[in-house]
Order: sequence, then C-alpha cells, then structure tokens
Amino acid sequence: MNLPSKLLEEAVEAFASLPGIGKKTALRLALHLHKEKQQATDFIAHAITNFKNNISQCKECHNICDSEVCDICANPLRETDIICVVEDLRDVIAVENTAQFRGKYHVLGGVINPMEGVGPDDIQIESLIARITGSEVKELILALPSTMEGDTTTFYITKKLKDVDLKVSTLARGIPIGGELEYADEVTLGRSILERVNYQKG
Amino acid sequence: MNLPSKLLEEAVEAFASLPGIGKKTALRLALHLHKEKQQATDFIAHAITNFKNNISQCKECHNICDSEVCDICANPLRETDIICVVEDLRDVIAVENTAQFRGKYHVLGGVINPMEGVGPDDIQIESLIARITGSEVKELILALPSTMEGDTTTFYITKKLKDVDLKVSTLARGIPIGGELEYADEVTLGRSILERVNYQKG
Repeated sequence: MNLPSKLLEEAVEAFASLPGIGKKTALRLALHLHKEKQQATDFIAHAITNFKNNISQCKECHNICDSEVCDICANPLRETDIICVVEDLRDVIAVENTAQFRGKYHVLGGVINPMEGVGPDDIQIESLIARITGSEVKELILALPSTMEGDTTTFYITKKLKDVDLKVSTLARGIPIGGELEYADEVTLGRSILERVNYQKG
Repeated sequence: MNLPSKLLEEAVEAFASLPGIGKKTALRLALHLHKEKQQATDFIAHAITNFKNNISQCKECHNICDSEVCDICANPLRETDIICVVEDLRDVIAVENTAQFRGKYHVLGGVINPMEGVGPDDIQIESLIARITGSEVKELILALPSTMEGDTTTFYITKKLKDVDLKVSTLARGIPIGGELEYADEVTLGRSILERVNYQKG
C-alpha cells in the first residue's frame, strides 16, 4: 500500500501490529481517528498506556486485577480445595459464565509453545506447584485449550505433580450440546464414543 | 462482560470505540498488549498521538499528507484539467491502483449524511467550487460511493455547478468484470441494460 504520509504509515503500522488487524483495517482505523475529535485519540492512547503501566496481578492466582488479591481469591464463599487452571482471563470469564464452578482459579498466562519461544518457566507453572504443595487443595481441573500446545502444557503439569497426592482432571471432550453428529470431526466423535457415559435410566 | 479490573475495562472501552471492533475483540487486543513488551504499547500510543497531532492536509486537494502540497498535486506530469472527486484517501488509493486516471483529486473527507449530522459545510465542497471557478478544469469525475449518502452528495455538487461550464461525469455502474448475471442484483443489472454500450465490431 502506497500511503502519502509517513505519519499515517506509522499509525497504520501501529494498528497492524495488533493481532487480527491487517493493513487495510489498520488504515480504516487510522482514518477514523483522523476524522474524530482529538479527545478520541487521546483517550485511546491514555487508556492503553495507563493499563500497561499500572495493571497488576493477583498474587494468588495471577489473574489480572487492580489490587493485590483478585475478587475471586478474596471471596470467602469460594471453595478452596479445588483449583481450575486456565490459560488467561478470557477463560476465567468463560468458566465463570457457566456458573458450574465455585472453586478458585490459577491463570498460567499462556501455554507451553516452543515455536513461539514460550517454555514452562515463562508461564505460571512454578507458582502453581508452590501453591498446591502443603495446601488443602484436593483437585486440579486443567481447563487448557484442546490444541497441541494446550495438551503439552496439561501433560507437563501432570508429570510435575505425579508424586503429589491430588486428583487431576481435564475437561470432558465430546459433541457440543445441540451439535449434529454428521458435522462433528472424527477425532471429537471418536473421543465421545471412547469416553461415553452411562445414561441415567428413568 | 464482567472484568476484574477498572484499568482493563478502560483499555477495552478504548479499543471498542474504534469502528468494527466489539467488546470481545477489544479484550483480546488489551490482553495481547498485556502479554507484549512495554515498547509495543508505547509505540502504538505514540504513533496514533503523533499522527493525530501532526498530520496535515494538502491545501489543494485536501488529501492527508505531511507537507503543504501532496505528491499528486505537486506532480507536474499529472493532468490539471480533470479532477476526480472522492470521499477519502482510501478511494484515492483505489483509483490510483487502476492506473486509468492521470488527473488530480479532490478529497471531500466524507459525504453528506444528515443522519450523522454531516452537512455540505462539513466536507470540502466549498473549496471544490472555489478550486474550479476560474480555473482550467474541464471535467469533474464524481467518484462517490453508490449509496444514498454518496448519491445525495453527487446530486448536491452537480446542482451547485449547474451554471459552471464544465463536464460532470460519474462512475459507470454495471456488472463487475468476471461477474455472473444470475448473481447480480436487479438494480445493478437494470442499470447495466439502460446504460448499455455499443459493442466494437471487428
């Protein structure tokens, strides 16, 4: 794309550095700011800088929060003997939305991904082990993505914990609720047959 | 969406203020910055602020540029008697990519849109009239979008110029090159029949 201005080029480059935003969308965003009032740009620049500079992490679960301990960890009504291990905040929100889990979380902040240079030490695995050791935690739900990287991370954590007296579970894989069999991929359908559950009669 | 942090909420709101970016995408972008190095955020904040504060307009065609007059207006090889009127920079790029136009441009910076409070005085129509009056311009191509707002703007400009001795044309509407008739909408197909062109025999 041949742009008539260096300043515009830089703004386009800035937007295009974000995931899922290509050059064309980036140009549309930059031209949107050009049309809008000065405050719109200042608000965005200030909000992201402020977020990046001042955001902190819960010292228990490593979720993003404004204080030392997040609301979930500070909530005395949440069960303390079960921990759900997730990749990031979005997964916490997803699990919370199900209203099926009343325990606490542990946010890894990523999954092991050698291709992108993310090793076990780059995510919150050590702190998970430390958190469990000598605690009252009885079960760990590894709710990580069903990808190669997610499975690797699940395997790594399970191996690390093999000597710890603790129940470790992962999410059930199978046909989604409302899903047609003909549209399911073979791996998922195969897994749902292997891990079939007893039907409750009556 | 129930976010655990005010700072994150503000960053999400900032991204979601951009066109085409919803709350979910905005959260993904904010979490991306959270993971990335400090420089990534600083670069974006600096680039958009710098762009907004220091960008200028070509005093001839009102296109975005870094200097007083843009490269196209300053180019002595471009024809000066024909002006293509477009909505914004993206349309200049689109027309330039066709390599079919060697004249100059006039960038309106929008189209008349009463629903969004954009009147004729909010876009560069007066400066277009002033630019044409007493000049050597012989033809004006109104290359505005084929929407209600674009057509209104085309109509408005044409009416304003009715006493000026000048050829005014608009883009041809019709079946796109490579397009199948059965997939064309009725209005487009109807227009392409009404405005059929003589086939060059031999």
